[in-house]
Parts: sequence; C-alpha cells; structure tokens
Amino acid sequence: MSDFFIETQKASVNLPLNGRAKVFMFGVPSYSNMGDQAVSLAERKYFENEFPDYQYIEIMDYDNAAAIKAVQKIITSQDIVAYTGGGNMGSLYTNIEQDRRKVFASFINNLTISFPQSIFFEKTEKGENEKTLSRIAYEKNPNLVLIARDAQSYRKMQKTFKNQVIFTPDMVLYLQAQKFDLKRHDTLFVFRNDGEKVVQEPLIDSIKHMLSDSDSIHQTDTVLASTKQVTPVTREKLFIDELKMFAKQKLIISDRFHAMIFSVLTGTPCLLFGNRYGKGKHAYFDWLENIDWVNYTDEEDLDRIQAEIVKISEAQVHQYNLRPVFKPLHDLIAVR
Amino acid sequence: MSDFFIETQKASVNLPLNGRAKVFMFGVPSYSNMGDQAVSLAERKYFENEFPDYQYIEIMDYDNAAAIKAVQKIITSQDIVAYTGGGNMGSLYTNIEQDRRKVFASFINNLTISFPQSIFFEKTEKGENEKTLSRIAYEKNPNLVLIARDAQSYRKMQKTFKNQVIFTPDMVLYLQAQKFDLKRHDTLFVFRNDGEKVVQEPLIDSIKHMLSDSDSIHQTDTVLASTKQVTPVTREKLFIDELKMFAKQKLIISDRFHAMIFSVLTGTPCLLFGNRYGKGKHAYFDWLENIDWVNYTDEEDLDRIQAEIVKISEAQVHQYNLRPVFKPLHDLIAVR
Repeated sequence: MSDFFIETQKASVNLPLNGRAKVFMFGVPSYSNMGDQAVSLAERKYFENEFPDYQYIEIMDYDNAAAIKAVQKIITSQDIVAYTGGGNMGSLYTNIEQDRRKVFASFINNLTISFPQSIFFEKTEKGENEKTLSRIAYEKNPNLVLIARDAQSYRKMQKTFKNQVIFTPDMVLYLQAQKFDLKRHDTLFVFRNDGEKVVQEPLIDSIKHMLSDSDSIHQTDTVLASTKQVTPVTREKLFIDELKMFAKQKLIISDRFHAMIFSVLTGTPCLLFGNRYGKGKHAYFDWLENIDWVNYTDEEDLDRIQAEIVKISEAQVHQYNLRPVFKPLHDLIAVR
Repeated sequence: MSDFFIETQKASVNLPLNGRAKVFMFGVPSYSNMGDQAVSLAERKYFENEFPDYQYIEIMDYDNAAAIKAVQKIITSQDIVAYTGGGNMGSLYTNIEQDRRKVFASFINNLTISFPQSIFFEKTEKGENEKTLSRIAYEKNPNLVLIARDAQSYRKMQKTFKNQVIFTPDMVLYLQAQKFDLKRHDTLFVFRNDGEKVVQEPLIDSIKHMLSDSDSIHQTDTVLASTKQVTPVTREKLFIDELKMFAKQKLIISDRFHAMIFSVLTGTPCLLFGNRYGKGKHAYFDWLENIDWVNYTDEEDLDRIQAEIVKISEAQVHQYNLRPVFKPLHDLIAVR
C-alpha cells in the first residue's frame, strides 16, 4: 500500500525509487463530490485490472505544484502522466483547469493521458480567454492524448485542440454492477446546487407533489455535506455507502450525471434531467440508451414525466457490458 | 481521369501499373440512393484534398468478386484497401455485407479502412447468424480499422468486433457548405419507403395538412426513381442537382439521414424523424446539435412539431466546420 497515494509536501522523500514503470495520476479529488471520487476510484481499479505491472501513484489536487517538481526529478521515459477525468475541463472550474494546464505543459516527453472528461468553455470573453490559455498549454505537449467521455465533448475537443482525442465512456462505467439486495422503499431527488443547474425548482416541486401519494421522498446531492475531505483511503467506503443509498431507492430523479451512473451500477430506476451543457444527456445517448431502467428527459410536461417514470420503474434489470468500449484506452497504453 | 473508376470485368487489363501508392475503394454504389452516392463522392474528394499523392481507384459494387482477384495481382504493401461508408453494415443489406466480408478477408496484410458506417444487426436468429459471419470475416484482418459515424455505432462495433474502431462523422459532412442563392418556396417531404421506415403515414399526412395553408408541398425520396444506374462519372452532377432541389425548399421534413445532411450543406431548415435503429438521431446529437436550422424529433404531438418547425424556419444560417473531427482518419493514413 505504500504507493496508495502521496502527500507531496513530502513527495521528494516519499516517491518510490525503483525500476517499475509508473503512472502518476494528478488531480485526484480531495473534495466530497462522490461522482469525482468514483471516477478516481475507477481509474485506480482500471490500472490494477488491466495494467498491474504499473506502479500507480495518486497525487492529490492540493499537492499539484509540489508534486510536479517532485515527479520531474524521478520520472523516466517508461512512465505515464495522467490527469483525472470528470466533468470539469473548461472555464467553469478554473482552479482545476489551471492545475491541468501545468501538468500537461510540464511533462511533454511522456505519454500524457487526460482521462475521460466532458468539456465546456463559456461563450464569453472569459471563456475564450480560458480556452486560449488551455490551448497554449495543451499544445506544448505532443504526447498528450485527450479522452472525451461523450460525442459532444469529442467534437469540441477536436475543434479546440490539435492534440489527439480518443473516445471512451466515463471511467465509472468501467466498474461492474453491484448487487446489494437491499429493500427499496423511497424516492430520492438528487439535484445539483451549483452553476450547472438548469432544472427549475417549481418543476422539481411539481414532480415531488405528483409522486408524494405513493412514495416517501427525500432530497440530497452527490456532493456530501457532512464530509469535508476525502482521501484515497476513505474513498472506497464512501463510494460503497453511496451505492448502498442508491440501492435502497425505488426511484432516482436527478440532474447529476453520476447519479445516473450510480443508478446503472445498482439497477435503480433513474430519470435524468439536463445540466447547463448537456453532459448527462450526451453520455446517456452515447452509452446508456439501451439500459432499460435509466432514461434522460428534457420534458416539462408532468403527464409525460409520469409516463417515463412508470416505464423505467417497470423495467427489468438486465446484463450490460461497457468494458469493450474502453479498448482505445487500453490500446493507447499497451502499444508502448 | 484514367483512374476515375474501373470496370473490373476488364480490370486485369485496366488496373494501373505504376509506382504510386493506391487506394482501392470497394463497394462504390451503382444504385440511385443519393445519400450513398454523396458518401462515395465525398470519399473521393477527401483523398483528393488530403492525400493527393495516392492514386484513387473506385471499384463498383457489381464488380466485387472480379476486382478482388484483379487487385490481389497488383497490390503492394504501400496500398490501402477501403470499403465505402454509409448506413448498411449489418443484417439489413446482406448482399452488401457479403461483399464487405469478402474484401476485408481478402486483403489482410494491407491497411484496410471501413469508411464511416452505422451498424445494425437484427436481434433475430438471422441477425445473430449474420453477425457471426461478419465477425469471422472481419477478425481475419488484423489491419482492418472500422470507422463508426455515430456514438451508438461506435459502441456496437466495439462490442461486436475485436478490430480497432475509430469515430468520425459521415463522410458527406466533410464536404463544404454550398451556396446556390435560389428562391425558396416549397416544402419537401423526403421519406423512405423501405424496411427502415418507422414514421407512420397518418402522422406524415397530419403534418402535411397542418402546413398546407401556407405552403406548396411535395414529396420525394433521396433514392432517385428516374435514374437506374449511377457511375462516378454521372454522380457529381446528380449530387449537385439534388442539392439544388434542397436549396429551393423553405423546409424539409424527412426520415432520411442524408436529407438532413443535404439540408445542412444547403442551409435549408430540416426536421428529421427517426428510422428503425436511430442512425439519424445519433448522428444529429453527435455532430449537428449546434446547427440551428436542423433538428431531430421523435414527437407525435402536432403542436410541438409545429413549434419545432417555426424554430428551425426562423434560424439564421451560420458557419460550422466539422473538418477537424475527421482528424483520426487523417492520422490513420498519415502515420504510415
């Protein structure tokens, strides 16, 4: 476990010095967004399953600057630099985007993989400026490969950057379905409370009202309120707890992309609404359209929403397998 | 023009013997589906623009068996084998699928490119049998690269075949927008009349009725009725005529994927309905969602259809550029 994660305040001491090829995964989230936590967990499991010979080293988001310096001292040509996936490439989360630029521009001689992301630069002066800064930084690295997790992002990344772009699902869809056999009795509304939110509160209230005859209704978010900081040590238990919470629900109503993915993993009926730039919508149509117990909608008509809820609630859980679709990522690493 | 296309009844005589690297494009359609004709035209223009050093040799669909033998006699390691794109990979067009298998299994030592396709094997015994036959044939060729033209097909190709799969738009979207400055005065209904059709006639009739107060309405298909056979010599003029017909319309209502693409190229408002397996729907969401004058719908409610027609009819034509998204195809050929 010595390579589980590195606190690089002490990184120059702690980084392992041995002959093994290494993956340096930068940007590992310390914040309590369980979607992003699940992404970083899935990334680790991906390497453990597919490339166990690599030593996998996680670098926490708050350690970025110090870790770049420490890694530069020990990195060799066989090592891979990576930046964690998610839905934060662009101009909405500038502190993360700044870290990403620094990592990409610092290791230009190593295979550098931007794990599956969706991208959104606002169509404003600020957004254009951020896009230019990212373009300059990314294009310094001829060995950088960007992975888009939906077709819209794939198109936008190729239009924005000269770097190679490949296309896979979000890393959490690499994880296997989980069976908990818990009794399902509630309906859970999982709605964001940030700048990406577009679903109007009156619509959410109307859906609650419509369902309230028959269901016990709760509301939450996939960003944990009670947990401030997460580490790779505490991450997996929090993730399993989150899945268990989903596995207890009869129904999920959400605008969180990863609420849909947690519903996929746990066989929980889920109706997903949009966010500001369609990251859930596109991922749904690209990868999940044939999974019967989840659906995406832009509907505002309550009768139609009701009909969609009935349909997913009556669906049988069936087998699915998205692992073959991660092949381009495997090929990228395996050909080295 | 000697390499424009080859009638391979005489191919052993006619195939050019010189030192130039060659592209052998198999499956070039002789039938009058203008979508498929536009695909084969765009493929030729792609190579003319991007890889002019290659000698581009088109092999007509009816010449498949003879051409395989003729090409086998002269092919060298620098040459590329290709099979034309479209929406016919799978179990619906078995004569084409049989030809494709023979080509892929015959040239296993050359880079072999299946140009952008959508894929659909029926979930029947026949469909499963066809899938097995295709899998066996495709997997004989370790140098075969499949290109999917929508994310659904990308996912399905990766789940079906072990071959490398890459992701680009339909080749017709490589063509530049066309300005004809013709007066627009009619509405054209462009509906298929084949096994892929799912839109019900009563809905089409209702939309016609709804529009008939204000518009002169015609109906056609992108499969020409008056032309039986098309060749690479007659193809471009027929294609330009088709675009001119679109450029004269105020509105296109269709279930033909390429009717939407011709509408994109000519700046013609177009509302697209579905086919049997979502090939237009997915391409719309993947590549065309931000083009204001086209839209996809599954609606059956006339008021909502009316509102969508108003929206696309009032849209301004704007710039768009999908060429950067063809980069994976370029990279595939350029690295050789």
